[in-house]
Amino acid sequence: MAENTENIIDKIKNGTSEELDQLAAKIRSDMVESVSKTGGHLASSLGVVELTIALHKVFDSPKDKIIWDVGHQCYAHKMITGRWDDMQSLRQMGGISGFPKRSESVHDITDPGHSGTSLSIAHGMAVARDLAGDDYSCVAVIGDGAMTSGVAWEALNCIGASKTPVIVVLNDNDMSISKNVGGLNSHLQKLRTSGFYKKFKENLKKMSGPRGQHRLESIRDAIKYSILPRDIFEEIGFKYYGPVNGHDIEVMIRLFEFAKAQNRPVMLHVLTTKGKGFAPAEEDPTRFHGIGSFDPSDVQKHDKVTGQSWSDAFGEILLELAKEDEKICAISAAMMDSTGLMPMKEALPDRVFDVGIAEQHAVAFAEGLALNGMRPVTAVYSTFLQRAYDQMLSEVCLQKLPVVFAVDRAGVTGADGETHQGIFDIAYMSSMPGITIMNPRDKETLRNMMKKAFSSEAPVAIRYPRGKVKESAIPAGNGDPQILRDGSGVLILSDANMLDEAFKAAKIMENSVIKDWKTLSVAVADIGTLAPLNEAFLAKQFRKYKTIVTVEDGVGTGGFGSAVAAYACRTKAPVEVLVLGWPDKFIEHGTIAQLREKYGMDAQGIALKVEEFIGGGRA
Amino acid sequence: MAENTENIIDKIKNGTSEELDQLAAKIRSDMVESVSKTGGHLASSLGVVELTIALHKVFDSPKDKIIWDVGHQCYAHKMITGRWDDMQSLRQMGGISGFPKRSESVHDITDPGHSGTSLSIAHGMAVARDLAGDDYSCVAVIGDGAMTSGVAWEALNCIGASKTPVIVVLNDNDMSISKNVGGLNSHLQKLRTSGFYKKFKENLKKMSGPRGQHRLESIRDAIKYSILPRDIFEEIGFKYYGPVNGHDIEVMIRLFEFAKAQNRPVMLHVLTTKGKGFAPAEEDPTRFHGIGSFDPSDVQKHDKVTGQSWSDAFGEILLELAKEDEKICAISAAMMDSTGLMPMKEALPDRVFDVGIAEQHAVAFAEGLALNGMRPVTAVYSTFLQRAYDQMLSEVCLQKLPVVFAVDRAGVTGADGETHQGIFDIAYMSSMPGITIMNPRDKETLRNMMKKAFSSEAPVAIRYPRGKVKESAIPAGNGDPQILRDGSGVLILSDANMLDEAFKAAKIMENSVIKDWKTLSVAVADIGTLAPLNEAFLAKQFRKYKTIVTVEDGVGTGGFGSAVAAYACRTKAPVEVLVLGWPDKFIEHGTIAQLREKYGMDAQGIALKVEEFIGGGRA
Repeated sequence: MAENTENIIDKIKNGTSEELDQLAAKIRSDMVESVSKTGGHLASSLGVVELTIALHKVFDSPKDKIIWDVGHQCYAHKMITGRWDDMQSLRQMGGISGFPKRSESVHDITDPGHSGTSLSIAHGMAVARDLAGDDYSCVAVIGDGAMTSGVAWEALNCIGASKTPVIVVLNDNDMSISKNVGGLNSHLQKLRTSGFYKKFKENLKKMSGPRGQHRLESIRDAIKYSILPRDIFEEIGFKYYGPVNGHDIEVMIRLFEFAKAQNRPVMLHVLTTKGKGFAPAEEDPTRFHGIGSFDPSDVQKHDKVTGQSWSDAFGEILLELAKEDEKICAISAAMMDSTGLMPMKEALPDRVFDVGIAEQHAVAFAEGLALNGMRPVTAVYSTFLQRAYDQMLSEVCLQKLPVVFAVDRAGVTGADGETHQGIFDIAYMSSMPGITIMNPRDKETLRNMMKKAFSSEAPVAIRYPRGKVKESAIPAGNGDPQILRDGSGVLILSDANMLDEAFKAAKIMENSVIKDWKTLSVAVADIGTLAPLNEAFLAKQFRKYKTIVTVEDGVGTGGFGSAVAAYACRTKAPVEVLVLGWPDKFIEHGTIAQLREKYGMDAQGIALKVEEFIGGGRA
Repeated sequence: MAENTENIIDKIKNGTSEELDQLAAKIRSDMVESVSKTGGHLASSLGVVELTIALHKVFDSPKDKIIWDVGHQCYAHKMITGRWDDMQSLRQMGGISGFPKRSESVHDITDPGHSGTSLSIAHGMAVARDLAGDDYSCVAVIGDGAMTSGVAWEALNCIGASKTPVIVVLNDNDMSISKNVGGLNSHLQKLRTSGFYKKFKENLKKMSGPRGQHRLESIRDAIKYSILPRDIFEEIGFKYYGPVNGHDIEVMIRLFEFAKAQNRPVMLHVLTTKGKGFAPAEEDPTRFHGIGSFDPSDVQKHDKVTGQSWSDAFGEILLELAKEDEKICAISAAMMDSTGLMPMKEALPDRVFDVGIAEQHAVAFAEGLALNGMRPVTAVYSTFLQRAYDQMLSEVCLQKLPVVFAVDRAGVTGADGETHQGIFDIAYMSSMPGITIMNPRDKETLRNMMKKAFSSEAPVAIRYPRGKVKESAIPAGNGDPQILRDGSGVLILSDANMLDEAFKAAKIMENSVIKDWKTLSVAVADIGTLAPLNEAFLAKQFRKYKTIVTVEDGVGTGGFGSAVAAYACRTKAPVEVLVLGWPDKFIEHGTIAQLREKYGMDAQGIALKVEEFIGGGRA
């Protein structure tokens, strides 16, 4: 099906209820088909197909602003707004992003990848609209999971007080990536089961005739008399309506039309089913939250686990250690599965805490546990941990507390693109006083580092990449720097993530016909610990090698390498230092290999840059 | 009055109601007396004198954990727990801190300086307590202002769901530093005026006899039948009691005894008056939030403004520019006064937004405004902006939006100590792609930079220090680097904050009898822009000078200087680079001058380090 945007939006604007249901079915089947090839965030996007159609029926994007929170539920939106055929290229290098993206379409308001900010953005846009005297709707679509994040609460509080007309669609599927938790969830559970939907449906059926004020008023009445009295959102200044069935386009159209006419903040509670319409995803929405390619006719087929992930290796070792030390406990921010914590949760449920999408609390809560003698580990993806920057610095590091940070998905992670590349953590953690940042090269090294971290008296971060863990081929490391390949003249100091590329680069250089390589050979060290600097080790190498190349799976500015450069300068070491890292920009989606190649962070790129630096040039 | 801790705590434990009121009066008068000499956070601390006494009456610190949020309201707590006489040294170098501090006393649980984390910490400690099978209370004392911060919401949500016994004392004075805002505040306003307190007091009067279960039950009943039905806290899993008069020790003792016996999360709503008992502070609590020394008998006396602060200069220029450009708008996170925004608020109220203690929302809201064509400036202290690290990076920088960050109190700020030293912003912002970081040396330069920022198409941060702004003695800068003092051989590249010290250091060096100084003289440049690097300028200087010294009012690791070092290394510049910044540790309280001296960041220290680096040594 190749249709241009206008055609599909026209169809939606003019379609009958039946035609819209047919469109939903078509979107859904094409989505399953294409995501089965590309991989992607299937379950969330399947859940909002009808919601997306209803939004585009009632609101006129891009004049009206539809702001998708986090944004991985945007596939139907993308298909409707001119990117149906592009779904084949979803998350592929050069193809469309798995998240809304301003550079792709005027219908994508922002590039969201972290939860909870849609409300603030909608509020800002609505305030600007009112200042300009314009008239359109600002609609934030936010999941119940994202609603547990602090920034969402801050925004609710401000929107409610400002009385600025903002429409919040609370897409409630009772899930974030894992099952939801928290007091808010209990509150929503009460709303979910309030029986309102049934009443609303009945009232709707009774109504007939042309659309218009009368009809709207009837709906308003139907809504008004059905809402629950005890509602958080009403208390802080929203009018709350719902819950309604998020797979009933007709009902949502009526609700959105009503909301559009309101001159105040409204909260529309829409119940959806994650994975809706594709049985395997409905049954296991967590697995289909973010999934690789699969066979839609037999979803088990392409699902062979071909090796342990870093996350699972972390989880396995953690459970071993926690069985031996009852002080060890673990904290997740709504990602129990993806950070490998489920085995410990099953074995030692009292010592594993899922705090919801609440990274700030995850870290400050860890402070409390550590103050009382526990040994907490907070397992969070590198980019999401950015939310807790202040708590890491002002709570944990300032108190010198032994909190362990398991920084998962550190380094470039690939297909999720800009907001998910874990390339800032070395830079932002390096300047935190007293924290140790380690990076394991294989599973046994991870184990050694975890043991070290849990016996440390100060904060320790262990960062490891997305992907499969390696078994140790050589004796494992423990965070100390190790020269793993001898050489003379040139030393590559690599973090563990980049070690393979560094090794290959060394070989490429020695095999290249470059004038100086007769007298030079390239040594490679696994630096083990990225911060603080091991100055004794560095001083020793500075005496031995003339050229020092640092390579790290993080931004080049402000990370490990620039600290090495500053140290070399300070000590007037007789060495030349080249700092290699990701460039000073956001890195788009693609496979890790493609991105490394594009940005010169693969072996070939490293070799070229080093050769250029040394000044030999290729013969 | 010099008493040891046991004496005062004994007095509280055994004191009659009348004696406790007398103690409160004594604490209050001594506090006003000593703070009038040292300066400090007077209004908040005056507001909680009775609350603090009641807490220490009912709870047995340090066995029971009393966790003060933010902590600047802790003076009565410090006086009660062994530091009455030390109040003379409050906030002085080597004296006691203005915030709770673990290293000072076992009664200080953590070193809090940023709002909203007490709930998370109390939760963590309570969970650890329950895992260990221990029995004591974890009490978080949090202001209604701090309750608007996202991390507090994240914690409420988790505590409510976990059902872990945690006691939250909501110290509601209807203020943060400025008057409170937000939907939550409207909700609290309803609770405040509910008339419960009167009823509670009447019930209390009717009760008599010894303490015990019967009495507790009566109080519980009195409370139970008085609470409002519509309450946010109840909805997410807390039992809510209040509000009660926070200046009535007797009432609070009953309430805390009742709360202590509860086996679930409880929220105790206590109404206090900021500045209580000292008329000038009650009348102008914002002025007495953080105040310098004053004459208690005539508070106007020592309040002469002797020059414009950087904050006020920013506010003045902002208003000028905003009058010319209707797209300019400003956002504050509960610090309208202290960031200089009041003049614009008064002149252009529609374009100034106080979002409460909600830095994350402040930045994401700015994104929304900028997406709709506005030119927002978010004015936040350097250390508080740490809360919005992720929003700056993942929202504003990723979207390349022209949001201006007015980073107030950047660099070492002095008396507030560790949590308030703005020494991390250069490091954490430098690695954000696409942001420009400027640092003005005087008011006219600030004006030029603000004009530049508001006409930029990308994010710009302008960081300026605490203290008085200087009028321009020399032609103003505009963010471009400028050699302000000629020399040969040595160039100090300084940020504007450190420029005076750099100049003085240059003079010291040239006047010192050091062997190389016959042929060397020291040039000084104001670098103007700290990131991105002006490589053309640097390359030019690298050809001219042999020694480059960078000086920045920020941590030495990962900031401007290490970027210069990495650049010098990469280009194999024939220079020696010395990076000077604050050491890799948290900087305690003291005057800025004292701290600079201690850490070698004054002129003398810089001169010594440079001489040592050059290797001359003093003759």
